[in-house]
Amino acid sequence: MQYMPVTDSMFLIGETRDQPMHVGGLQLFVPREGQSPEELAEEMAEKFHVPTGDVSKLFLKRPATPAQIAGYAAWSYDDDIDFDYHVRRTVLPRPGAVRDLLRYVSLNHGNLLDRRRPMWEAHIVEGLADGRVAVYTKAHHSVIDGVSALRLLQRMLSTDPDDRSGTAAWDARPARARAKSKPKPERKGLLGTLTSAVGQVAEIADQVVGLGPAAAKIAIAGLTDKDYIAPLHQAPSTILNVPIGSARRFAAQDWPLERLRAVGKAQGMTLNDVMVAMCSGALRTYLSDQDALPDESLIAVMPVSLHSDGDATGNAITAISVRLATDQADAADRVASITASTKAAKAAVRGLRPLQALALGAAIAWPLAFTTIPGFVEYTPTGFNLMISSVPGPEETLYWNGARLDGCYPVSIPVEGLALNITITTVSGKANFGITGARAELPSLQRLLDHLDTALEDLEALPPKA
Amino acid sequence: MQYMPVTDSMFLIGETRDQPMHVGGLQLFVPREGQSPEELAEEMAEKFHVPTGDVSKLFLKRPATPAQIAGYAAWSYDDDIDFDYHVRRTVLPRPGAVRDLLRYVSLNHGNLLDRRRPMWEAHIVEGLADGRVAVYTKAHHSVIDGVSALRLLQRMLSTDPDDRSGTAAWDARPARARAKSKPKPERKGLLGTLTSAVGQVAEIADQVVGLGPAAAKIAIAGLTDKDYIAPLHQAPSTILNVPIGSARRFAAQDWPLERLRAVGKAQGMTLNDVMVAMCSGALRTYLSDQDALPDESLIAVMPVSLHSDGDATGNAITAISVRLATDQADAADRVASITASTKAAKAAVRGLRPLQALALGAAIAWPLAFTTIPGFVEYTPTGFNLMISSVPGPEETLYWNGARLDGCYPVSIPVEGLALNITITTVSGKANFGITGARAELPSLQRLLDHLDTALEDLEALPPKA
Repeated sequence: MQYMPVTDSMFLIGETRDQPMHVGGLQLFVPREGQSPEELAEEMAEKFHVPTGDVSKLFLKRPATPAQIAGYAAWSYDDDIDFDYHVRRTVLPRPGAVRDLLRYVSLNHGNLLDRRRPMWEAHIVEGLADGRVAVYTKAHHSVIDGVSALRLLQRMLSTDPDDRSGTAAWDARPARARAKSKPKPERKGLLGTLTSAVGQVAEIADQVVGLGPAAAKIAIAGLTDKDYIAPLHQAPSTILNVPIGSARRFAAQDWPLERLRAVGKAQGMTLNDVMVAMCSGALRTYLSDQDALPDESLIAVMPVSLHSDGDATGNAITAISVRLATDQADAADRVASITASTKAAKAAVRGLRPLQALALGAAIAWPLAFTTIPGFVEYTPTGFNLMISSVPGPEETLYWNGARLDGCYPVSIPVEGLALNITITTVSGKANFGITGARAELPSLQRLLDHLDTALEDLEALPPKA
Repeated sequence: MQYMPVTDSMFLIGETRDQPMHVGGLQLFVPREGQSPEELAEEMAEKFHVPTGDVSKLFLKRPATPAQIAGYAAWSYDDDIDFDYHVRRTVLPRPGAVRDLLRYVSLNHGNLLDRRRPMWEAHIVEGLADGRVAVYTKAHHSVIDGVSALRLLQRMLSTDPDDRSGTAAWDARPARARAKSKPKPERKGLLGTLTSAVGQVAEIADQVVGLGPAAAKIAIAGLTDKDYIAPLHQAPSTILNVPIGSARRFAAQDWPLERLRAVGKAQGMTLNDVMVAMCSGALRTYLSDQDALPDESLIAVMPVSLHSDGDATGNAITAISVRLATDQADAADRVASITASTKAAKAAVRGLRPLQALALGAAIAWPLAFTTIPGFVEYTPTGFNLMISSVPGPEETLYWNGARLDGCYPVSIPVEGLALNITITTVSGKANFGITGARAELPSLQRLLDHLDTALEDLEALPPKA
């Protein structure tokens, strides 16, 4: 048994059947030259069945007391993994379109994980008409956060297409081998670009937003600090801010980073600003189509690092709230408004001590602490409308035993009152958008993908700034 | 809104993440001459998408207040069905063995249904190497019980292989058409052999066993009646009677009814006795293999009709408890013991007034009323070890648009303290055994199928009685 910190247990306590607290990821792989999709799936299934004793501890971990009523004071560790349960295989029905894959992920992401066993699953999915093979992974947020999950997954991958040492993320053998060959400096190579600072930003902000007493406590600490800057805004009521059921809808697509960077250069925006502007345009169209666009702008919360140049060592981590300017019809006006909003938000928090910055992030997100109280969501004004996170990964092309990683989409957690989550990973030259929403509450969610595409085109069509 | 009786709401109240309260069914179909499995699956997918307005009310029903804390006072009805969510399609991975299908059902049967929409799902499964197409259906026990589900399913089927009017169980149009063509007597034909009395037996006994305050109340009523016959036995502790996780394992197989009937004739047993004897032999072997066979016999509860010849009109319904004679090594001894036990149990309840019989059934099952109290299962002696139900269906060969029904297996509900459930349907000349168990608690559950086969062979090898 091992003591469970509140930052873990809050995700167990905050979980309900309508609000599963697991994060997910969807990866797409192109089989290597001469390899059929079936052979790649077979190879994965084989490598994913790691021998007993070689599974890393993280993947053997489960709550010592599964019943909610008994609390979650400790972790325990299983000796073995029932791979028939944890590693699943499926084939998509014809036509095997990407849409069919997204539907598979949607339907599975709403299912709770069993608490009486290590809380993770990996699904190997065949049957895509384009010949790619997908891996959908799912793990409880109390065990792992999205950023660490991405990092673990990348540990399986290589920049060398001829490397055949790829195994499972839960295989302890490669890490053991690395530990033995120390004391040479820790191999940072592949993960170099995933700066630990930026990783932690999303990680901790995500935990703060993860509701529960811990977030409330941090928020209160913030309120008693004289340097505290109050988040003054109040977000409009929208169809994104409603109680939700357990059913999910997942949509994902990627765009070349160079297109986003070109827009950023032309408009004097950061890469993050461009992503926000895409979301802004897309959400405006999506809500308009449903006659649900509020008069006031939507407000998004984004986890950001205060040290954007990778020089961070401490907890210089916060969340900023950004006006998405969805109330403005003109793309150029939205760009100006978003750029001003993110700049102001960053300026406001710059110079704060780490705890203050963290408290500010928590204060912004405080309403989430109460989402599991029935009725709270309906009767309480919201501080923001959705969360948009950006998680940077490695720029290089990555391979798993020669199969090229062709997409790496986060599948995140909508909660009561926040029916939509947009998370973006930048991996191998692509911005991969993962959109996770409550199914019944957000119809036709997949149209956001078309709207994002249109929004990017609109940004590209703007005259460059001097 | 519609008032929700306690017999419905107890299944919502009694549900936990480890104890989902839905029943399921697995049907296998052989495509008609010249039809490929893909074509049959396609035809099903098409017919299962019933137009808005033509879905029967039962399948539009959901709790008006999904949050557990607010209670379940009423049902409400949705206007429409999100068929992309409720009707799912999948293809099994190679080799497409029956084992792969059972695994699919196992993994899906542990997932809770979304309470914010009508609580049912249908999965069309392709990819079986033998060319059959499977349909796995799942519905909440508060909405429908196993027997009614089987009856509804049969409503889609026809005894005529050339009938092409097959549609979905939730299609209201055929029922409407039948209602219009009244006043001719209600078409009983297909369902004639599923006598309503026997149907109700399993139905109500199943509800009594379904735990919750209602069962306790009935049990107390029974205790205050002077004619009450106390169930005196106490079942041994076994690995079947433990707290359970949400993960499930499902195993299913069928045997020709004529084999079971021949054994019954030779040994002077009823068909039910033969099924019980098969379960007895199989459980003895299964528990022995795991060094978990108790010295005393296992005790099973079975729902039975007091009017076994189909002449029942009232609530002549009860559950009997049967000593499975698992403590006896010899098959002949087990046969003698089981026959005596079921005869005595039936004699004891024969002549009781309906309520008394019902109370007896409830008293036998009373410990189930407390299974959701943490710790109860570990510290309380059990009245019985498992439930074995037999649900008779039509004898004739059945078709869905020419595709022959080749198996019809119930997927039932293990609960806290009752990790194993065996339900048997007799349809089209076969005894279809559906075995549903808690996954982590009952390893190698599928071996029970081999053991059932061996047990039947052992029974067939016995010298016939005079």
